Amino acid sequence: MSTNNHEAEQALTEQVVASFAGTPDERLRTLMQSLVRHMHAFVREVEPSEAEWMSAIRFLTDTGKMCDDLVRQEFILLSDTLGVSMLVDAINHRLATGATDTTVFGPFYIRGMPERAYGENIAFTPGTPALVHGRVMSTNGEPLANAVLDVWQTAENGMYSGQDTGQPHGNLRGRFRTDAEGRYAITTIVPVSYPIPTDGPVGRMLEATGRHPWRPAHLHFMIDAPGHRTLVTHVFDREDPYLGSDAVFGVKPSLMVDYRERSADHELGRRFGFDGPFREARYDFVLDRS
Amino acid sequence: MSTNNHEAEQALTEQVVASFAGTPDERLRTLMQSLVRHMHAFVREVEPSEAEWMSAIRFLTDTGKMCDDLVRQEFILLSDTLGVSMLVDAINHRLATGATDTTVFGPFYIRGMPERAYGENIAFTPGTPALVHGRVMSTNGEPLANAVLDVWQTAENGMYSGQDTGQPHGNLRGRFRTDAEGRYAITTIVPVSYPIPTDGPVGRMLEATGRHPWRPAHLHFMIDAPGHRTLVTHVFDREDPYLGSDAVFGVKPSLMVDYRERSADHELGRRFGFDGPFREARYDFVLDRS
Repeated sequence: MSTNNHEAEQALTEQVVASFAGTPDERLRTLMQSLVRHMHAFVREVEPSEAEWMSAIRFLTDTGKMCDDLVRQEFILLSDTLGVSMLVDAINHRLATGATDTTVFGPFYIRGMPERAYGENIAFTPGTPALVHGRVMSTNGEPLANAVLDVWQTAENGMYSGQDTGQPHGNLRGRFRTDAEGRYAITTIVPVSYPIPTDGPVGRMLEATGRHPWRPAHLHFMIDAPGHRTLVTHVFDREDPYLGSDAVFGVKPSLMVDYRERSADHELGRRFGFDGPFREARYDFVLDRS
Repeated sequence: MSTNNHEAEQALTEQVVASFAGTPDERLRTLMQSLVRHMHAFVREVEPSEAEWMSAIRFLTDTGKMCDDLVRQEFILLSDTLGVSMLVDAINHRLATGATDTTVFGPFYIRGMPERAYGENIAFTPGTPALVHGRVMSTNGEPLANAVLDVWQTAENGMYSGQDTGQPHGNLRGRFRTDAEGRYAITTIVPVSYPIPTDGPVGRMLEATGRHPWRPAHLHFMIDAPGHRTLVTHVFDREDPYLGSDAVFGVKPSLMVDYRERSADHELGRRFGFDGPFREARYDFVLDRS
């Protein structure tokens, strides 16, 4: 029968921390002991009732059960919507000054999408035609030839191919290469804002907390060049109404671009074969040397 | 391109906290904002690599997938093995001086087990025969008549009925009532130490961290009496080798009992019909008034 609750509760935390003292791997030991201290600090601060704790257990269980082996990863969504993914990203990309900012990878990347030619069209579903182009450079200003830009974005229905089985294989996805001057060009459509999936526990969490599920329109990039760190980022449409309230906190001011209106007879329209008005977005990437 | 990483990372945390400012339910708002601050503090402290973070995502996903709708609840096991369940228990049971200590509920309780007569046997599988008896009292010392003691323990194979389909229905489970003087008596077997389930993510975590999965032998009690708070606790065998290293941190010094050797011709042996040597454990419970 405890005489001093606070002391007994603190002693419990120390006992749990001590139980991990024999962890053979030093890094795992650090992770587990820190996890225990922070989880216990949280519990001590909010003093959950037993019913609240049980709700948390059920929420985590449902989150695990919502995951499939394909594109639905509800724990990544949870990490994203709690800003944890962006924090991990920030910690892992404290870059040399001048490199392009990174942002969340997200759960919708698919490996092994088709190689695309310079300026090739990747949009097989309707939308506002767009040319996205620019250069890939090193932090010393040198253009990077033969860099690979793996890109993906949603269709106008807000879904990625793979997530939405109605879209043709490789729709709005593909791997481009830079030319000898480090230039890339992608024919696609203007991206749209879209809600993250709301039919699972994360959607219920957002609803219960009065948060919306929308992400501002963006094009995903994963860029690889020899001798450089892989860059995972998005380029956002500067006009998007959700830029200030991204459900996954992925927006950075340096990652916005203008989709400018162009007519078909604009020099780029002729060069890339647009047969009507289109938008032009120009964005240069700077990669950190590895 | 961030100029000051620490400031940018702190600003991210504040942005996520602020995103929950509109949560209609004040308690939920407090919980979510505190959760975000503590999770971010943990991430900032350990600075996980992206691969480590992905391992955590996979671990949590596997933990959810391991749960079934019956008796396997891997997230409760995780909470138990990280000492969080005991901390929640401690916070919710800062009792009046003199009440019996509580401990974890665990995942193996089954509702609606048979009513048992005073002294009735609940062991339909082999073991060392035992009589567990004592009194149930209020904190003012008054005996509590008609208190209900719901009890459960493992068979000698370390499994609970329900978890182990080979055991007869209601084996080592049942609901006893106190008599007019607050006395209870249970004929059963001496409990054994047993490992928590190790075939899931929690088992892998224990193995990777050099921790064993054993719980010291105990008998579970959930005790209800009118006008009193429900008491959820265990009574441990004082001789158990795992008392100092319970995998779920459930042991408290006040919850140990001696299983004393008795011969069949001991007065209790004659009264309760033991036909050979048995053990006697005597434990009195004190309930807090509600």
